[in-house]
Amino acid sequence: MKPKAVVLVSGGLDSAVTLYYAKDKGYECRCLTIDYGQRHGREIAAAFQLTKSAGVVLQVIELPFLPKGSSLLDPELKMPAGRTAEDIRNSGEIPNTYVPARNTVFLSLAASHAEAVGASRIFIGAHYEDSSGYPDCRREYLEAFNRVLELGTKAGIEKRLSLEFPLLDKAKKDIIRLGLELGVPFEYAWSCYSGGEEPCGECDSCVLRAKGFKEAGIDDPFFGNK
Amino acid sequence: MKPKAVVLVSGGLDSAVTLYYAKDKGYECRCLTIDYGQRHGREIAAAFQLTKSAGVVLQVIELPFLPKGSSLLDPELKMPAGRTAEDIRNSGEIPNTYVPARNTVFLSLAASHAEAVGASRIFIGAHYEDSSGYPDCRREYLEAFNRVLELGTKAGIEKRLSLEFPLLDKAKKDIIRLGLELGVPFEYAWSCYSGGEEPCGECDSCVLRAKGFKEAGIDDPFFGNK
Repeated sequence: MKPKAVVLVSGGLDSAVTLYYAKDKGYECRCLTIDYGQRHGREIAAAFQLTKSAGVVLQVIELPFLPKGSSLLDPELKMPAGRTAEDIRNSGEIPNTYVPARNTVFLSLAASHAEAVGASRIFIGAHYEDSSGYPDCRREYLEAFNRVLELGTKAGIEKRLSLEFPLLDKAKKDIIRLGLELGVPFEYAWSCYSGGEEPCGECDSCVLRAKGFKEAGIDDPFFGNK
Repeated sequence: MKPKAVVLVSGGLDSAVTLYYAKDKGYECRCLTIDYGQRHGREIAAAFQLTKSAGVVLQVIELPFLPKGSSLLDPELKMPAGRTAEDIRNSGEIPNTYVPARNTVFLSLAASHAEAVGASRIFIGAHYEDSSGYPDCRREYLEAFNRVLELGTKAGIEKRLSLEFPLLDKAKKDIIRLGLELGVPFEYAWSCYSGGEEPCGECDSCVLRAKGFKEAGIDDPFFGNK
């Protein structure tokens, strides 16, 4: 019998690669996506397409966050746009697309599900280089959360549950190359933050995706598909 | 202006004392309770009564957990009953009333709310002595979660958010005495796990409450109120 894993799947590119990675490592994957009132709710449809392609179960949890303090939740807040990847990396600031404690909430829900279904791993597609600079995508944070699992869950205490973040140190281009090797259908992955029907090409997430495909020397199949 | 705090209020005795403690320390309290499908949903009504008495806001978050792996969620599982407080303490086992990653989920939701409303503290009524032996009520776990806040939230990085667990090392009798000093209306606090209309007197939570009042030398006002 295959070991089980819970995979956090947002509908974006990184978590799609993470899902195919976990499958490739032999895990029976159970995916979670969180409908948290994000402006780009379009990514939930993408999560369905990606998990269907992978032949795995997706569960959607509805969890309205307080619509405050993040431009991903509050359309009154202006989202950063038109920044180069270098601008993003060098700003040294947490952008207003940060959603309060988002990964902590997602990982805790994944932990609860993992214990309930007897999964031994939780996978998250967090990475820091070529990311928007969120504190909850850093190694020290993810290791601290793993410690919470070890100390605060029955499965963790019994050494039956831990967190994996296989993309952490990878550049976007290398994540894309890995995804291609694993057969990830990138044409389904949705990255744009802006909440439109088509990617805006301007928000940080669109910029980082475009940079990744460019550096990988590959056309983004999302657009090829149009 | 008062500093703000998010207080996790279950409707039980410990979180009621914690709420009054936080109020007494000068915090403007915003309370959260989680409707997670617990058999003893009666405690949510208690949370309303307690927060109303304290004159503070209560927000209820509905979050159905997987109804697996815990006798608090799955009525097919038999709950421990008839154990003395010594039996509970000495068993060395995590009882089947443990809900997978419950405090981690609750604390992460509290963290997100705290950041959104600009609260500087999260209060939880966890304590270990005279508790049912849950791993997510231990000091090392709570300190690990505090580390997650410090590293993984914007407010934590900016030293504007931390976790407090003022009851941790207290015996139940001392929690009750503190509550009496602070004016906690214990007649509203609901402890029983069993899901009935009246406390069963048999489950671990009823046993620990009865022991606490007995050792404090006080009659439990819940029963005096009948």
